[in-house]
Amino acid sequence: MEISKIVVTGRIYKEIQEVIDGLETDKIFRFLPEESVCQEDIDWADAYIAFKPIPNMDYKNIKWIHSLGAGVDSFLFDRVWNDKILITRTNCSFGERISQYSLSYVLSDLQLHENFQKNQLNKQWSQKTPELLREKNVLIFGTGKIGSEVARTFNYFRANVFGVSLSGFPKEPFKEVFVTNKIHSISSNMDIVINTLPLTDKTYELFDFDMFNKFNSILFINCGRGASIEDKAVIKALDSGHIRKAILDVFLEEPLSGKNILWNRKDITITPHISAITTPAEAVTCFMETMNNIEANVELENKVNIVKGY
Amino acid sequence: MEISKIVVTGRIYKEIQEVIDGLETDKIFRFLPEESVCQEDIDWADAYIAFKPIPNMDYKNIKWIHSLGAGVDSFLFDRVWNDKILITRTNCSFGERISQYSLSYVLSDLQLHENFQKNQLNKQWSQKTPELLREKNVLIFGTGKIGSEVARTFNYFRANVFGVSLSGFPKEPFKEVFVTNKIHSISSNMDIVINTLPLTDKTYELFDFDMFNKFNSILFINCGRGASIEDKAVIKALDSGHIRKAILDVFLEEPLSGKNILWNRKDITITPHISAITTPAEAVTCFMETMNNIEANVELENKVNIVKGY
Repeated sequence: MEISKIVVTGRIYKEIQEVIDGLETDKIFRFLPEESVCQEDIDWADAYIAFKPIPNMDYKNIKWIHSLGAGVDSFLFDRVWNDKILITRTNCSFGERISQYSLSYVLSDLQLHENFQKNQLNKQWSQKTPELLREKNVLIFGTGKIGSEVARTFNYFRANVFGVSLSGFPKEPFKEVFVTNKIHSISSNMDIVINTLPLTDKTYELFDFDMFNKFNSILFINCGRGASIEDKAVIKALDSGHIRKAILDVFLEEPLSGKNILWNRKDITITPHISAITTPAEAVTCFMETMNNIEANVELENKVNIVKGY
Repeated sequence: MEISKIVVTGRIYKEIQEVIDGLETDKIFRFLPEESVCQEDIDWADAYIAFKPIPNMDYKNIKWIHSLGAGVDSFLFDRVWNDKILITRTNCSFGERISQYSLSYVLSDLQLHENFQKNQLNKQWSQKTPELLREKNVLIFGTGKIGSEVARTFNYFRANVFGVSLSGFPKEPFKEVFVTNKIHSISSNMDIVINTLPLTDKTYELFDFDMFNKFNSILFINCGRGASIEDKAVIKALDSGHIRKAILDVFLEEPLSGKNILWNRKDITITPHISAITTPAEAVTCFMETMNNIEANVELENKVNIVKGY
């Protein structure tokens, strides 16, 4: 496949332009804010690079779509694409970013940051022993590139790391991998549960009260997608002790409305979808590398499976 | 050397007794609070297991002293011992503990916990990109067992890790190791500085203003000893921007007095000497193992060098 004309849009289109301007390339680019992209741009282009499609646009002449985010549900969820189109996604440092995000909140919890912070305010010297990661059982939903890197990170500290996937196939470095309806055999012993799953019809509202009900007093981290979680179920699970503390980076509605009750809970930490943010430099590195691979007919590590939805 | 009679004292003597009571051993123990240990107990014993010596006591009949802490300055600093005495120290999980303690505060900083916590209180959705460890330069004072484990941990995340030691000998996994008076060649590029050094006459007040002056806007973590740091120099370095944030676990005076001004600073985090706490179970595992090695004439990994002072 040959690519010569490329439309780049989305939140960071200007910063991407600055990076591209510093490179040597024979491609022709149009860098546009989402609201300015019109059908003529899409008809002109071979490739479309963005976080999401523009509503009501016809993409029939586009050969290649590249998602600036790791998640491609905005392109695939509830939408049908021509099966000749190639869809790829950014996959640069997301595993590393989500690992460090998750670990930061787990360590802050085990090292009792909040407790010592409160004591400092009261000038109170009161020893309490932090807990070590090797004493902890971690369950990671998603055993793909991101989930596996999170698993390796927790494994480095000798935590017991289990996985959940569609297939349940054993995979390093997970001690065991379960399909969703088999996790009850270990769920009550889990201390930390991390969701890294993409949004598909199989993961939509996967975390409902029945799911949380299987756990006892877990630290729950969501770095996957907001729509995989029922907000009401999180609140109910916190109130009933199935979740001890929730760290949420992704939400059904983003930006999260000021009226949302999730903001007010002391047992919920909210971050604004930054656990796997795409930086302009990494975005460019990734799509230029992907384009080179496409043109050289090299197998693509970051090709999206349209049927699976991720 | 044969050991049959052992005095155990210190903060956790009761908990240690509970662990020992569950073991099979032919040794005779006296478990005592520090204020009850008298000269007769010391004269009776072959071995003394504690965090520190009892003041004004004569230890001439003791063959083996085992420190419940990793630091042995309370035994050695400014004190002369008979050179026939064997001194060992607890060395179980301290490297692991100090690694996770340090990493928890570094990740909390890089992942902008405080910023997002403040935004949550204001229900404000405002994206900001966390920083990755691989973008950071870390300087670790101390390249022994603890410093090396901290280095390996930061190395796992591809941070650039440098070391400082008395000898300056190159050592894995440090990129380079410097003697104290040569660090000026790299110090201005360091982002994170972690002290893990023992207290000796060479490290007493090592971190004075001249030392902090070499750095720019560092995150400084002290897990070594309080007496290695001049409190006034920390304050001055924070006020002048050489230190950006200080995480202090050890202090000249412990417990830290309520009157100490360190408590009040927002740019200082105080924890009550818990980064390498000795748990009763680990204490027992370590001294029983040490005792077995002593009796079997196995070389001791945790033998203290009385001349070096650690």
